[in-house]
Amino acid sequence: MAGNTFGTLFRLTTFGESHGPAVGGVIDGCPAGLHLDLEAVQRGCDRRRPGSTPLGTARNEADRIEWLSGLYEGRTTGTPLAFLVRNSDARSEDYAGFAAAWRPSHADFTYDAKFGFRDPRGGGRASARETLARVAAGEVARALLAQAGVRISAYVDRVADIAWEAEPTFHAHATVDAQAVRCPDPATAVRMADRIEAARSAGDSVGGSIVAVAEGLPAGWGEPVFMKLEALLGGALLSIPAAKAVEFGSGFAGTHVGGLAHNDVFVATPDGPKPGTNRSGGIQGGISNGLPVVVRVGFKPVATVAHPQHSVDREGNPAVIEGAGRHDPCVLPRAVPIVESMVALVLADAMLLQRAARLA
Amino acid sequence: MAGNTFGTLFRLTTFGESHGPAVGGVIDGCPAGLHLDLEAVQRGCDRRRPGSTPLGTARNEADRIEWLSGLYEGRTTGTPLAFLVRNSDARSEDYAGFAAAWRPSHADFTYDAKFGFRDPRGGGRASARETLARVAAGEVARALLAQAGVRISAYVDRVADIAWEAEPTFHAHATVDAQAVRCPDPATAVRMADRIEAARSAGDSVGGSIVAVAEGLPAGWGEPVFMKLEALLGGALLSIPAAKAVEFGSGFAGTHVGGLAHNDVFVATPDGPKPGTNRSGGIQGGISNGLPVVVRVGFKPVATVAHPQHSVDREGNPAVIEGAGRHDPCVLPRAVPIVESMVALVLADAMLLQRAARLA
Amino acid sequence: MAGNTFGTLFRLTTFGESHGPAVGGVIDGCPAGLHLDLEAVQRGCDRRRPGSTPLGTARNEADRIEWLSGLYEGRTTGTPLAFLVRNSDARSEDYAGFAAAWRPSHADFTYDAKFGFRDPRGGGRASARETLARVAAGEVARALLAQAGVRISAYVDRVADIAWEAEPTFHAHATVDAQAVRCPDPATAVRMADRIEAARSAGDSVGGSIVAVAEGLPAGWGEPVFMKLEALLGGALLSIPAAKAVEFGSGFAGTHVGGLAHNDVFVATPDGPKPGTNRSGGIQGGISNGLPVVVRVGFKPVATVAHPQHSVDREGNPAVIEGAGRHDPCVLPRAVPIVESMVALVLADAMLLQRAARLA
Amino acid sequence: MAGNTFGTLFRLTTFGESHGPAVGGVIDGCPAGLHLDLEAVQRGCDRRRPGSTPLGTARNEADRIEWLSGLYEGRTTGTPLAFLVRNSDARSEDYAGFAAAWRPSHADFTYDAKFGFRDPRGGGRASARETLARVAAGEVARALLAQAGVRISAYVDRVADIAWEAEPTFHAHATVDAQAVRCPDPATAVRMADRIEAARSAGDSVGGSIVAVAEGLPAGWGEPVFMKLEALLGGALLSIPAAKAVEFGSGFAGTHVGGLAHNDVFVATPDGPKPGTNRSGGIQGGISNGLPVVVRVGFKPVATVAHPQHSVDREGNPAVIEGAGRHDPCVLPRAVPIVESMVALVLADAMLLQRAARLA
Repeated sequence: MAGNTFGTLFRLTTFGESHGPAVGGVIDGCPAGLHLDLEAVQRGCDRRRPGSTPLGTARNEADRIEWLSGLYEGRTTGTPLAFLVRNSDARSEDYAGFAAAWRPSHADFTYDAKFGFRDPRGGGRASARETLARVAAGEVARALLAQAGVRISAYVDRVADIAWEAEPTFHAHATVDAQAVRCPDPATAVRMADRIEAARSAGDSVGGSIVAVAEGLPAGWGEPVFMKLEALLGGALLSIPAAKAVEFGSGFAGTHVGGLAHNDVFVATPDGPKPGTNRSGGIQGGISNGLPVVVRVGFKPVATVAHPQHSVDREGNPAVIEGAGRHDPCVLPRAVPIVESMVALVLADAMLLQRAARLA
Repeated sequence: MAGNTFGTLFRLTTFGESHGPAVGGVIDGCPAGLHLDLEAVQRGCDRRRPGSTPLGTARNEADRIEWLSGLYEGRTTGTPLAFLVRNSDARSEDYAGFAAAWRPSHADFTYDAKFGFRDPRGGGRASARETLARVAAGEVARALLAQAGVRISAYVDRVADIAWEAEPTFHAHATVDAQAVRCPDPATAVRMADRIEAARSAGDSVGGSIVAVAEGLPAGWGEPVFMKLEALLGGALLSIPAAKAVEFGSGFAGTHVGGLAHNDVFVATPDGPKPGTNRSGGIQGGISNGLPVVVRVGFKPVATVAHPQHSVDREGNPAVIEGAGRHDPCVLPRAVPIVESMVALVLADAMLLQRAARLA
Repeated sequence: MAGNTFGTLFRLTTFGESHGPAVGGVIDGCPAGLHLDLEAVQRGCDRRRPGSTPLGTARNEADRIEWLSGLYEGRTTGTPLAFLVRNSDARSEDYAGFAAAWRPSHADFTYDAKFGFRDPRGGGRASARETLARVAAGEVARALLAQAGVRISAYVDRVADIAWEAEPTFHAHATVDAQAVRCPDPATAVRMADRIEAARSAGDSVGGSIVAVAEGLPAGWGEPVFMKLEALLGGALLSIPAAKAVEFGSGFAGTHVGGLAHNDVFVATPDGPKPGTNRSGGIQGGISNGLPVVVRVGFKPVATVAHPQHSVDREGNPAVIEGAGRHDPCVLPRAVPIVESMVALVLADAMLLQRAARLA
Repeated sequence: MAGNTFGTLFRLTTFGESHGPAVGGVIDGCPAGLHLDLEAVQRGCDRRRPGSTPLGTARNEADRIEWLSGLYEGRTTGTPLAFLVRNSDARSEDYAGFAAAWRPSHADFTYDAKFGFRDPRGGGRASARETLARVAAGEVARALLAQAGVRISAYVDRVADIAWEAEPTFHAHATVDAQAVRCPDPATAVRMADRIEAARSAGDSVGGSIVAVAEGLPAGWGEPVFMKLEALLGGALLSIPAAKAVEFGSGFAGTHVGGLAHNDVFVATPDGPKPGTNRSGGIQGGISNGLPVVVRVGFKPVATVAHPQHSVDREGNPAVIEGAGRHDPCVLPRAVPIVESMVALVLADAMLLQRAARLA
């Protein structure tokens, strides 16, 4: 299997380079009969657009999704949903010099090592523009999950060293998007925005972390052994550009605690027995337990900076990389819908897989 | 795809419950012609055995691997390598009471929710005994990777709050295994062992983290987008029982740093250009860059404790879970070979996939 | 994906060589809660045993299936069902000479070309003994399909030039197995048996064809485009050793007819509209239409004969292949349960996949 | 896995309905560095266009392929190759009545049964227009296979009862395309064309068969057990609309012959040992033996005819289907490039898979 397809029953295949004709995808396996609000999907994609927040870069494309198949009279037909977005604002000359020397901590060197050559324009396939297709597909997955009462939301909980320490919980999009930096807490959001502007002024960049919460899942989703929800979600989230770390529930902090203090003890509730705490992040034995699924993703700082950096060219001679091209000093706010989309793709698949778990 | 198969070209399918007749697996896609030292594979499996360290539990099975197919005159034939290990020391009566009430932070409740019923003996399929098959297969993957000069080693770098702060690097098995707790630093190892004994005395349990290092990979392994090495390795490692967090290279700590300080700048070396630092953990754009791959996995504390815990039974009535059955207060030392095996399975697959990346 | 796994949701992985320790398989994805009559499964496997018919070879192994996992109190648990059968009657010396020269129309030469070397004992992995695992798994699939009212039966409709011209229809196992040659028509069965005995006397072998009929499928199983039922069933049946041809419904004969005469016109029935004829073999657009699925498989004559045959050895020198080893002059009667099993595996998978086709 | 993706390493995902905005596909896994002559690919696609032969229908679209990704400076980059073709000549009103009553031997009824509703315009996803994406991808596969010296050609060997009895062999495209009916023998081609015109005059349709030959394969391609070349090619070919039968080498006819007469005996040649005859169709044990791969596909007569046909509507009332819409009375000539493309897709995948069969 080549690496551009994701999922088992609800499957996404994506394509496209940053400065080629288009990016897009094909969703195969979406059940028939789903009413799809294409404007809602577009709005979901607009959330990841550069320029969707005042903190982002100036690249300002309409990024209108064109739907090519799989819909009839507003509903999915069970056949592939294909879509594309044109790359209308390509400025490949910005990147011409990048072909000669490798940018540090980018994929230039490794793509050359893998494929023997590469499309050097704007990062080519390794550009984060690829994630546009994930968000479009994630919005379709979200619509499917809504049928089962599942809601997904994410937010920035830390930018560099500015953290919001609140217990992870579900925050509506309206609350999250009210802050340009997409941290639901206004006071922390201001400090985060200042931190990003300080990095921009210094010609530097910052990383941080995002928390995603999915609520409304029934107990029983996820598969034993290699398709545990942590494995599927973790793999999905670590496929996002710049994602380098992931933790569920109490995460690394929880590994400092003893089992007696950490266990999620069952209690009787009006809806039946449930764990009374959620240190497991809604997953036990790899399978959802009915509590919200909680996961945190760490993003390294953006590799593109405004300062010249030393490097080496393909002949091994010293070279200097200028900080050219547009870039965000912080991808976190725009990564929020990408994180949500990867969670949605995994859960939509898990929902369909669960239909085959028992005798009818 | 059901969840008991792992990999694309180098594939492992596992089977078996803790107290059923056997656990085992089928490796499909191992290239033909590999000399396989079955005693070395057995020794690799012995490293995860309960009782392999003085800190583990008393369950003492021979756990001899029986090979069923795929070998002729000591070499792989390119056909499936099947193997099994008998469950010779089953004591299902220890677990009889578990069928009635759900153990906290175990998979009892979620398996019931998923499948409608379950094998309650010793955790059934959710038992860590399942990982025996992973280690056997991981040893085959290790032998294949050795052909390409790839070596993998892991070690415990933290037990609860007792951490060894050293920079992650490769430590030979002899060094790691010289300490029962599998931390290469003798002084820290003593403190970790004390910490584990303290937990045991208190009827409690502890978690911690393991670092794995793979060295000798050429640049170019891993696939773009959804099959980035971080995604594959992260998914693989998070499928290990009790694993709840994973981070590559500088990990979460690196997300506090600015891009200028974090970037891995290329330098000329006698072997050609290479990044001069390894904050990326050997992976850029999801593809290996020729430096060691470095990943850390966090394990939650063992859910089984020696104290009674409150719970609820299937009818919703209050129940008390006694701390029955054998268990380790700390799985970390035994999880070291499991972590190595999952890394080996991913890298063996990546190695074979890379053969199809370019024109011959 | 390596070639020893079959299916998407209901998946079978098989292993084993003819003269290695064992053959067997792992079924992953069988829904939980299925009562499995292991004796019925064994009886299903006994139908393919050499010696199950007076026309077969003398190899007489008990071929008892040993179940290793996935069952608890007689029901499937949703976890992998692993099983094996020991190779108790291995006589590898019979085949010693085969390593030197390639047997015509066997897989010796092509396995050498593919893998560089091979297990030469009794055909190794290419032996039809491998199909034992298919039949065991097919019996599990059959039990699952029975829940949906689907029944599958096959029979020999031609041996060499002795054909039973009757319209394909469902014949119960009792009717089929009443004849050693497994043709339901006693008169034709006698002629077929005579034809097989004539081949045996002449030191020759014969081929022929088998018809399989599945009835009770609802309309709607199968997937568009690449997973049409014809594609899945055809691929499954052509994976059986010696199968070289397959046709659905009216098959090749139907391609001689005009569309007006060939179309299956809909008629009103008490159960709703249905095609009034079944020239399509129960499949239109790749999807079941509610009529019986009808498929015919052609098997080439057995390659092993009792006469010496000219060949070439690995050094390119002339060699003579003696007609050594046990063999059937005709595999058709024993192939009947194998054909049924491959149909069952495909349909069980299609049944589960259909659960994801629509909104719940 | 949903049904719109084909292949393991060289993978095609297709999308599109007959009267939706576009049809197209995404090729993932094509090795990097392949020079792709896009005009040659276009010419390959033009061979399946309606109107490419005087015997076809009048639908006359430019069907220009638009390439969206995966190419840089004329070479493949190892990333997905996406492409689409606009549906510029949609006349959905022709098909309006089809929503009410099911056309016999079309997919209308079965799609309704599967998905609950469908896009009724021109067959929707079940239209043969879908195969345009297969041909475009097949041409890419052909270019890849050319690197290994593999050539693929197909031709019509029978229309209804008009057969060309010649031994299957490779015929260059120029020879095949010199006849509108794509039978290389001019005299037979005339009779076939007459037969098609007779069907057209009678308002009827015809089926027939196509032979494909692939030459230049080395021995060793294909995988044991479930991914035998016959299984992969047979499944691929039976996924073509209207394909109902497939046979390899001597096919059904060969099943009438005894083993002594049928076996392909090895002979010494200047290029090393080879089978001296090719009754196996180039495949033994599922793996290529170095001789040409030979396969025949049977196509049922076109279901659309010019006469009214009785049917039933969704309410179960009698209805009459008028013979509306454009259609070919015979799809065989246009199916020739489709058959070649499915063979090419399978062999390109087998070529890449073989790279992982042995130690490097």
